[in-house]
Amino acid sequence: MQKNVSDCNIGIAGLGLMGGAIARALRDKCGVTRLFACDKDNKTLEAARQEGLIDKGFDAANAGEMLALCDIVFLCLNPSLIPGFLEQWKNTFKKGCLVTDIAGTKESIAEAAQKFCEERKSDCLDFIPGHPMAGAEKSGFSNSQLCNFNGKNYILTPLSCNKPQNIELLKNLIYSMGFSRITQVTPAEHDRKIAFTSQLCHVIAAALIDCESDTEITRFGGGSFEDLTRIAMLNAPMWTELFIENRVSLLDRIDQFEKSLEELKTLINNSQSDKLEEKLAAIRDRRIAMSSVQK
Amino acid sequence: MQKNVSDCNIGIAGLGLMGGAIARALRDKCGVTRLFACDKDNKTLEAARQEGLIDKGFDAANAGEMLALCDIVFLCLNPSLIPGFLEQWKNTFKKGCLVTDIAGTKESIAEAAQKFCEERKSDCLDFIPGHPMAGAEKSGFSNSQLCNFNGKNYILTPLSCNKPQNIELLKNLIYSMGFSRITQVTPAEHDRKIAFTSQLCHVIAAALIDCESDTEITRFGGGSFEDLTRIAMLNAPMWTELFIENRVSLLDRIDQFEKSLEELKTLINNSQSDKLEEKLAAIRDRRIAMSSVQK
Repeated sequence: MQKNVSDCNIGIAGLGLMGGAIARALRDKCGVTRLFACDKDNKTLEAARQEGLIDKGFDAANAGEMLALCDIVFLCLNPSLIPGFLEQWKNTFKKGCLVTDIAGTKESIAEAAQKFCEERKSDCLDFIPGHPMAGAEKSGFSNSQLCNFNGKNYILTPLSCNKPQNIELLKNLIYSMGFSRITQVTPAEHDRKIAFTSQLCHVIAAALIDCESDTEITRFGGGSFEDLTRIAMLNAPMWTELFIENRVSLLDRIDQFEKSLEELKTLINNSQSDKLEEKLAAIRDRRIAMSSVQK
Repeated sequence: MQKNVSDCNIGIAGLGLMGGAIARALRDKCGVTRLFACDKDNKTLEAARQEGLIDKGFDAANAGEMLALCDIVFLCLNPSLIPGFLEQWKNTFKKGCLVTDIAGTKESIAEAAQKFCEERKSDCLDFIPGHPMAGAEKSGFSNSQLCNFNGKNYILTPLSCNKPQNIELLKNLIYSMGFSRITQVTPAEHDRKIAFTSQLCHVIAAALIDCESDTEITRFGGGSFEDLTRIAMLNAPMWTELFIENRVSLLDRIDQFEKSLEELKTLINNSQSDKLEEKLAAIRDRRIAMSSVQK
């Protein structure tokens, strides 16, 4: 039976930066009327309830009570916690529930999701792994207003067992939250691509800050440095997890980047103006072509 | 005698992105009434004149005619052209003229400026080298509206022979154009610092684009990739010049960056979570401290 979002109870496990931002979008843009959250921090739950953002909060020890009520569940926990959460609470999910997550790496999540679907197949549970390509350089529920979904990308890595009507429902919900483009790929392709667009960029930003100790260097900033290093204000525990979880793809991307950097360095070192200018012009054209890809 | 900006004729040599942006700021924010420009492209001069931005345009072959009229001159040419321009036109500058430039490297400019001041000492010519820390990823006069100076940094690298009242006048003019912070350093320090905040960042952005040929990769972008590579849409001839001109400092900065990158890579490769998290947390704190430096 096709779910109708306005009749659904929706639950959010983990009310941090992204969990909070999803709650806001569901409430403000999707007209969700029954919204629940569970979190290890009772103060966060209380703040969200007082604000009218959620109808009821459940502390982490009672996550099962919330899950038993929900037709749709967003898992917004740190990636490494998801397999354990599913294992602990799998028998408490409501029959027919549609589960999704927001983790920045997808291979291990897809494996856990597959296991979860198989184990509760008779109850029609479904888990569609996903990754909203949005964030902010601050973390935690109290900064969740900073996280804007308008015009952003969303990646889904559906399992072969996922029900088409659930994929459709989730996609509609994602567009309603403000995202403008959904791309469906395998978990492996997601992890390879994200290693480049997200994790490599964070490693580079971090390395840039690591190699300059003078905080007054910002006097010499003209925008480039600020833009390249804003994301160095990262959530250290979460990015540590993501880097290590996706290290095979990430190390491969770092190697490719180092090779390109080395090539540029050689041209500069040898003062090969013509070749350098030709290369920079080609790079400029490629970046413009990337900007022109339609959303 | 102290110049009064409202009585000055101001000339701009080179009406590209920055020359155009400076002309706009002088006209719109500083109330400059007599503004001239010379450029190799007569169409640009005509467009600027028709718009009412400049009072008269002089083609490149007649730069001397403009210089003879001007009390203040902004040299907005590609850095490599400046010494030759000074050599060619030095005898045409008006007595007492204050000259400045906007080049992204300062050691060779300071040398040329010193020579210029000495040669026309008896006519009280003054040249204060400068670098407005503003730009845009598009080039040319037609994009000069994109270049906003509000809240930006400006670096001056005065010579020991520069007249204090001229430095004061230029600083007032810079603040009037919208810049919020002026830092005075030696040309050598400028070049070392800019190698990091500007040139290294451009090399990194270029290398990032160089190592990914799939233009559809933007489907997987969440903001970080876009922010880190926007400046890869660079003016290839100008940046080739800047990279090669400042290659000693730049290569040194690339080496430092590669070392930091290598360290992070090793921690990721060895899955050293604790050390990696500790390092990322320190990087985060340093970046936040950089953001907090008062303007």
